[in-house]
Amino acid sequence: MSTTVNAIAAPSATEPLITTTIERRDVGAKDVLIEIAYSGICHSDIHTVRGEWGQIQYPQVVGHEIVGVVTEVGSEVTLHQVGDRVGVGCMVNSCRECENCLAGMENYCLKGNTGTYTAVDTDGSITQGGYSTHIVVVEDFVLKVPESIPYESAAPLLCAGITTYSPLAHWNAGPGKKVAVVGLGGLGHMAVKIAHAMGAEVTVLSQTLSKKDDGLRLGADHYYATSDEATFKDLRNSFDLVINTVSAKIDLNAYLRLLRLDGTFVSVGAPPEPLDVQVFTLFGNRRSFAGSSIGSIAETQEMLDFCAEHGIAPETELIEATADAVNAAYERVLKSDVRYRFVMDIKTLADAAA
Amino acid sequence: MSTTVNAIAAPSATEPLITTTIERRDVGAKDVLIEIAYSGICHSDIHTVRGEWGQIQYPQVVGHEIVGVVTEVGSEVTLHQVGDRVGVGCMVNSCRECENCLAGMENYCLKGNTGTYTAVDTDGSITQGGYSTHIVVVEDFVLKVPESIPYESAAPLLCAGITTYSPLAHWNAGPGKKVAVVGLGGLGHMAVKIAHAMGAEVTVLSQTLSKKDDGLRLGADHYYATSDEATFKDLRNSFDLVINTVSAKIDLNAYLRLLRLDGTFVSVGAPPEPLDVQVFTLFGNRRSFAGSSIGSIAETQEMLDFCAEHGIAPETELIEATADAVNAAYERVLKSDVRYRFVMDIKTLADAAA
Repeated sequence: MSTTVNAIAAPSATEPLITTTIERRDVGAKDVLIEIAYSGICHSDIHTVRGEWGQIQYPQVVGHEIVGVVTEVGSEVTLHQVGDRVGVGCMVNSCRECENCLAGMENYCLKGNTGTYTAVDTDGSITQGGYSTHIVVVEDFVLKVPESIPYESAAPLLCAGITTYSPLAHWNAGPGKKVAVVGLGGLGHMAVKIAHAMGAEVTVLSQTLSKKDDGLRLGADHYYATSDEATFKDLRNSFDLVINTVSAKIDLNAYLRLLRLDGTFVSVGAPPEPLDVQVFTLFGNRRSFAGSSIGSIAETQEMLDFCAEHGIAPETELIEATADAVNAAYERVLKSDVRYRFVMDIKTLADAAA
Repeated sequence: MSTTVNAIAAPSATEPLITTTIERRDVGAKDVLIEIAYSGICHSDIHTVRGEWGQIQYPQVVGHEIVGVVTEVGSEVTLHQVGDRVGVGCMVNSCRECENCLAGMENYCLKGNTGTYTAVDTDGSITQGGYSTHIVVVEDFVLKVPESIPYESAAPLLCAGITTYSPLAHWNAGPGKKVAVVGLGGLGHMAVKIAHAMGAEVTVLSQTLSKKDDGLRLGADHYYATSDEATFKDLRNSFDLVINTVSAKIDLNAYLRLLRLDGTFVSVGAPPEPLDVQVFTLFGNRRSFAGSSIGSIAETQEMLDFCAEHGIAPETELIEATADAVNAAYERVLKSDVRYRFVMDIKTLADAAA
């Protein structure tokens, strides 16, 4: 009982992606069938298919920045209708029983939320992501994508958007607050746009000044190079909130010293190695070091509505949904050669199926 | 223009303390002269005199848990009167100009507050602490010690009390909150009493169960040994707040995993080595790792009033204020052989002067 659909999959950790087919389950009573229109490429996709975050089963389809249109709904679905423009992000289910799920924070599900790819689904199968023409998702993990957000650039909001919106909202970025964004990539450029729209004073901390013009255009008020030692002197005790989008190991204590009283350094990037923290650095200004992981479903909807209201959309580069195009895009992501997110037009993949 | 007073001082980093005399400045227009009655012994005193926290000048008098009575006030003093029972804690001044001082958070003075000992005072001299018969302090760094707090056990509130009260208050320990206290020493036993009085559910995490009966008597609801691996499994995702009073290096990630959603691990102990933090551990439950350093003057007064209201006082062991007695006490502090704070009766030292 399933439908065969076209997809772009990793056949192993070491081979390029290929075009193939996968099975999608039939639409259950509470499921929604989505015809995918656009699918974003996240750096996490690359880490995952290459086995850098642990062993996975192959073939595996990744992709957790998905927008499309509802083409079928189950008999008990009440939240979505055929024809709705919808989105799916990094998770497609959760345990619904733990204290975090009951509190509406299913992204922090204590049993681990069901990731959009590589997770074990309720039927025992391994979830397959958005590099595909269709996906079946339980209705309450499907978001409404406002029509005013450009269709072809909305997809990255489902990961890069919510991953940065959530800590900015939780730690109260807004008027009177000084926010620094470390790294101006897929996540960083969204953090700048969102923090600016929230009314905060935004500073980009990037390795070099090569993207300075872009950063200021996206909404940053200030732009500093972290390769310049003076940056860490000049900006000491400055920020209420630092959002770190970089996954490489950093000199954390140097960044912590940039926080003013009660400031928080939040990492949404995930360096694989542990970071050294000097407790004396945290004593100064009563600083905090925190982590944040995507956002809840309710918060993701709030983020989409916020972006619609403020005319915010990711800056994207549209590519065809072919294995060759995605493989080439991966190489450019690894070189940070994208401003700021690749999105594939799933039409190519749908046509390949015809 | 000064007064010679008896004191117990460290002559060098490696010799025992000796009884000697030091000079106290004349009472300035905004100064208060305090005849010290009781002075507590803090582990910081030992680190400091032994040069473990950096080189200092000798001879040096330490001690920053001070209670006594006002015996003289300057011409412009308005806050205190002769005869008042007062206290002095870890700082005796601050820059009064930086944004933190202006916000009433002089403990986080950006130029560094003026410590009660080893700091450079406004007149260029090095501040000398409370192991002494008298001290002269600018009026707004002098606290009022409520009469209902037993005189001979109040002194440790000025360091151990405020150091634990401040993070408990800031991170909202109270009814419905689960608070863990790591270590049941001078700071830890105050954290237990205060958190219990605030209405939180309190758990002690100690190396062994040797002080369990004490911990429960002091107000803890639960008591676990950290030497038992099951503790870290059983208590995973449990606490809203963990207060770490231990200065030794700990397996921080194991403790971080004890935090539930939006929980914070606050260190008031200061391990000299950096601690390793796995960012993935912080992602779970959106955890935070923070530091906290004593408290502001206003908050210290609030703490003293809170303790008076709730009948809270430190558990102390009273000793004579002789060099021999203090040297012996130091050895016992280093062996954690004190329940829970040594306080010296300064009368001995005053009599020695007669």
